[in-house]
Amino acid sequence: MPYVKRNDVNVYYETYGKGFPIVFLHPFSTNGYIWYFQTFAFARTNQCVVIDERGHGRSDKPQQGYAIKEMAADVVTVLDTLKIDKAVFVGNSIGGMILMQLNLDAPSRVVGNVIVSSGTNLAAGMPPEAMAAFQKDLVGAFGGLIEGAVSARTTRERPEIVELMKAQFMVEENFPRHVFFAAASDPSGVFNWNITDRLKEIRKPTLVLAGEEDQATPVAANKLLADNIPGAQLRVVKDVGHFYQLESPNEFNRELQQFLNQVTA
Amino acid sequence: MPYVKRNDVNVYYETYGKGFPIVFLHPFSTNGYIWYFQTFAFARTNQCVVIDERGHGRSDKPQQGYAIKEMAADVVTVLDTLKIDKAVFVGNSIGGMILMQLNLDAPSRVVGNVIVSSGTNLAAGMPPEAMAAFQKDLVGAFGGLIEGAVSARTTRERPEIVELMKAQFMVEENFPRHVFFAAASDPSGVFNWNITDRLKEIRKPTLVLAGEEDQATPVAANKLLADNIPGAQLRVVKDVGHFYQLESPNEFNRELQQFLNQVTA
Repeated sequence: MPYVKRNDVNVYYETYGKGFPIVFLHPFSTNGYIWYFQTFAFARTNQCVVIDERGHGRSDKPQQGYAIKEMAADVVTVLDTLKIDKAVFVGNSIGGMILMQLNLDAPSRVVGNVIVSSGTNLAAGMPPEAMAAFQKDLVGAFGGLIEGAVSARTTRERPEIVELMKAQFMVEENFPRHVFFAAASDPSGVFNWNITDRLKEIRKPTLVLAGEEDQATPVAANKLLADNIPGAQLRVVKDVGHFYQLESPNEFNRELQQFLNQVTA
Repeated sequence: MPYVKRNDVNVYYETYGKGFPIVFLHPFSTNGYIWYFQTFAFARTNQCVVIDERGHGRSDKPQQGYAIKEMAADVVTVLDTLKIDKAVFVGNSIGGMILMQLNLDAPSRVVGNVIVSSGTNLAAGMPPEAMAAFQKDLVGAFGGLIEGAVSARTTRERPEIVELMKAQFMVEENFPRHVFFAAASDPSGVFNWNITDRLKEIRKPTLVLAGEEDQATPVAANKLLADNIPGAQLRVVKDVGHFYQLESPNEFNRELQQFLNQVTA
């Protein structure tokens, strides 16, 4: 049964392979499928754990409860269930936030962090009319955000990625409307979560990968993370937007392998 | 709970969206993830059902029981459970075989067939030393088969697909060795299943999509299907190998949409 239950919420996960564990955390409105090109490739040498975060995909979608801290606690429950003591974590967007929170709440479980296109206190960077636009026309406003979140090369050469990302947040079984609005309005949720002052407490090796053309969490938002997490390294990736692992999987996998070699040597 | 149980075998499925049902059946040694670029895109307008066939991915992997007829019966159980009366089916490779068998065993459930790189009586086209090679070095022999199964363009531009396909059959949790050998030696399994004489009984609109550069189920194997299924149409797809839906998702999705429009009008 690939679920854990915490506070009455079922959280779905999959695990493949043996070896040093890697845990993958996906962006808002998507699901664990986004790691398709990582899950099986790395499972040849590592235990790969892919989680559908609460509110997404095959996990439960409660009416409330989308504080990043809650979502990080779900991850700890998955680790406990799988008897994983320590892991390398890869988190994209909200997945990166969950991962940073995990570094604060359960630092002993973390060997290293790969943060892919993320940030903190995103609300501060959003225009004041953004939330009204989401409420008026979620499909239009969020669809526009997604178009701006992928690179020109991805749009040209892999148009299926834009279509997929738009589709996922429109398919109710994957990401119902109430999850968007519950998370967006949560004072510690995806947009309002703010650990700017606590980034310095993250003490594990951290690589921040920012897509140069990502307008959803721009380079500056990622630079703020790397500037404030002690010793963190920032790499800005050309021709990539918000979804490096899917827009350029081969390059991403080489980079992840290199990081794994460094932190698990 | 996304499982059905038939004869003590749990078969995993997912369903997204509402509307006319489309059922997706994946190739040997892979899993339902291969439809990533179809599942969510089509779930905007259709009910998309993705099944992990027995022996694969998240389904049970019994020691025996890999006759194509068994695998088709699993699909019928999923349809019954979801109360799906009729659907359009898309089957790639062994998925296409399961689909053809379904046309023989439960024709009333089928509105139309999209057969992607498949065949029947594949053993006849295999060199006599093939099975010995698999037994001696499965990773090497099957890996070579996979390299020959994708197009030159895919190998060049999307090398992650070759890596993924190789990885999937090496990750025991996805596709254990015993499944390969049980299916390969089954007199009605993936290689020995032969309905050449019964193809004429398939009476539903059928589109056969053959990748021009597929060396696993070459164009000739697909042409045999189209020549013998009454009214079936064959399209040979340039720059594509065995995995059209993944090698060229945007083009594949346009073509699938066109077929849906025709058969569900």
